[in-house]
Formats: sequence, C-alpha cells, structure tokens
Amino acid sequence: MILGINHIGIAVKSIDGALSAFNKIFNTVDVHSEELPDRKIKIASMRINESSIEFIESAGIDSAIAKFIEKRGEGIHHIAFTVKGIDGILKQLKDNGVPLVDEVSRPGAHGTKVAFLHPSGTNGVLIELCEP
Amino acid sequence: MILGINHIGIAVKSIDGALSAFNKIFNTVDVHSEELPDRKIKIASMRINESSIEFIESAGIDSAIAKFIEKRGEGIHHIAFTVKGIDGILKQLKDNGVPLVDEVSRPGAHGTKVAFLHPSGTNGVLIELCEP
Repeated sequence: MILGINHIGIAVKSIDGALSAFNKIFNTVDVHSEELPDRKIKIASMRINESSIEFIESAGIDSAIAKFIEKRGEGIHHIAFTVKGIDGILKQLKDNGVPLVDEVSRPGAHGTKVAFLHPSGTNGVLIELCEP
Repeated sequence: MILGINHIGIAVKSIDGALSAFNKIFNTVDVHSEELPDRKIKIASMRINESSIEFIESAGIDSAIAKFIEKRGEGIHHIAFTVKGIDGILKQLKDNGVPLVDEVSRPGAHGTKVAFLHPSGTNGVLIELCEP
C-alpha cells in the first residue's frame, strides 16, 4: 500500500547552505542529520508537516549525487513515498513490468527499508519507496 | 503559514502516457484534468493521499514546459506547498531577500491562488506556493 509522500530529495553542494536558504522560507528548526557511508552521502531532513525535504550532499567525488550535480546542477533528485509492505509491492511492480533499480528493499536513512524504481518507467522521475 | 506539500509537478511529453505509466504504480482513478491556456499547458492531477502528482504537458511549442523538456527531458518540474495567506507570505519572503518569480499571487489550477519562487534562491528547486 502506498500511503503518501514521505520526502522530496534535493541534491545540494552544501547542506549548510541549503538549510540556510530554505530556513528563510520554512522557518523550521526540526532538522535531522545523518551520514550514509555506503552511499557516500550526508543528508539532512527538514520536517514540513507530514512530509520532509531531504537535502543530500556528496561525501565522495564518485557518489551518485556528485555525478548528478555535475551533470544537471543542484535540484530535485527524487520523490519518496511511504509504503507498507515494501517487498510485496516490489514483487507486484516487477510482475507489472515496472523497471526497478532495487528488486528487494535495503536499509535507508532513519532505520527505514527503501528501494528505488528506475526513472525509465516513470517519465524521468526517480521514485523511492520507503517503509518506516 | 506553510501547511505541507500540495503537489509535485512533473513535465511530460504526453499526459496519457504518464497516467498509464504511473497507474501501474499508484493504481488510482482519482484524476482531475484541466487546461490553462494562458500558460499554454494541460495538466492532470493524480491524487495520492493528502498530496497529488501533477502531470504537465505543453499545449504550445513556446511554453515554459516545452522549453524545460527540450533542455532537460521529462522529469520533476516543481514542488508546490499549500499555504494560508499567500500574499502576506510573499511580502515577508521579499523582505527576507528570497528571490521571487511572482511578487503577488495569480490564478492557478482548480481555482487556487499561486506564486512561484525563483529557483536561484532554493538550490535549483522551483517552488510554487498554492492557496486553495
């Protein structure tokens, strides 16, 4: 079951700079930071009501985020949806012919289970499924 | 006051194609379609819980969406946040030095009042404020 938007991931050169810019608009202090060494990224999530904005900064020159920024500049990287029963959903999507990056879920930020769908099946949009 | 994510706008070549692709994932029938001739676009909104995905198709070769797709391909175009008191917020943002596309709100889809912030102030992200 897909329950709603969990967060919007934004690729940035500097999390500190992004937090400073977005604080002028959202004026929030509810920020959670984390490092994900296996993906060579640092993230900071800014809570906005039921969803959040996740800023993603590269922690290595060959990370996917570093390549994304080099190619397209800073900007929206992915949308994540909260789901229940992630591995069952992935199996169903595969059976429906939806192209997947991850056929089974893996550990994400904040102790979640996550999986990415391939943007070739969703008009260039990188979608993450995220189970708390 | 900023209340949460209203929708995510996705630039697509064909709304019909996008609805067909996203239906494989979200399996929803709650879709609202509209034309906005002054912006030379057609949109279709797919409701997902409290938010929605808005597919945007160009209805003219010189529309902003046609240029976006020509330059970057299909993909996420903007994030819209539901707000209360849009013109007061715009004034406050201007006073805080946030770069704006629209200094006052204008009519949007579904009878809303909308305004765009300039992506130069938000790490390349085009943000729409949207008051129902």
